[in-house]
Amino acid sequence: MSSVKPPSQIAHIGIAVKDLSRTVPFYTELLGLHLVGYETVESENVRVAFLQIGSTHIELLEATSTDSPISRFIEQKGEGIHHIALEVDDSVERLSFLKKQGVKLIDEVPKQGAHGSLVAFLHPKSTNGVLLELCQRGAR
Amino acid sequence: MSSVKPPSQIAHIGIAVKDLSRTVPFYTELLGLHLVGYETVESENVRVAFLQIGSTHIELLEATSTDSPISRFIEQKGEGIHHIALEVDDSVERLSFLKKQGVKLIDEVPKQGAHGSLVAFLHPKSTNGVLLELCQRGAR
Repeated sequence: MSSVKPPSQIAHIGIAVKDLSRTVPFYTELLGLHLVGYETVESENVRVAFLQIGSTHIELLEATSTDSPISRFIEQKGEGIHHIALEVDDSVERLSFLKKQGVKLIDEVPKQGAHGSLVAFLHPKSTNGVLLELCQRGAR
Repeated sequence: MSSVKPPSQIAHIGIAVKDLSRTVPFYTELLGLHLVGYETVESENVRVAFLQIGSTHIELLEATSTDSPISRFIEQKGEGIHHIALEVDDSVERLSFLKKQGVKLIDEVPKQGAHGSLVAFLHPKSTNGVLLELCQRGAR
């Protein structure tokens, strides 16, 4: 069992969509969720719409270029749930622990995410096909 | 805009897995999440492992028969994220509102879910490929 502090909550759920302007109204007008705002994450070539639900978010992800992981995901699998982000206090420590345990990582070092967060993805090969993100609030 | 009360939180995220006994240890021993317990949901032909994360759960779903929606999902897409459940106060009212707005429903009437909840799925054709469940705590 790890001595690293466990994830405290679902930070967000990422959903790959083709067109934010056509998808956001379903979540706001039909489901009644609150749209917090938009942000473009240059490192991932995505534009994100943040929808508040309880203490967590649904993030709708639209590619801003054909290089975006979201473009490739939609090409291969169509629109749908892309990843789950788990909120952690120390992403570096958790990544190091997972690596030692033989878990395959996409990002061995956390990178800049939305809202100044630090994020790192685990490889779906080590997580039964689930793209899991570790997400640490606030930048260093 | 709907006058129906919006979903209050993510009730759970459902993940389709082939074998709970091989998957649960990743979430408990490597990610450090707390295993709340197991339940078999006869109506869906699934055995569920509940993992607590913050105020919500990750549900790992293993088919108990080849008739299970989880068997069919894994055959078609492999293991991975299966659905997102949104906690609502009145699933009947929300379903009625969504139907009036032209949203395609898998369940027009809520059915019995885990822990005595009432659950209903929206059709992915109306939700950009995302299988969304409305989940209302406690049975009537």
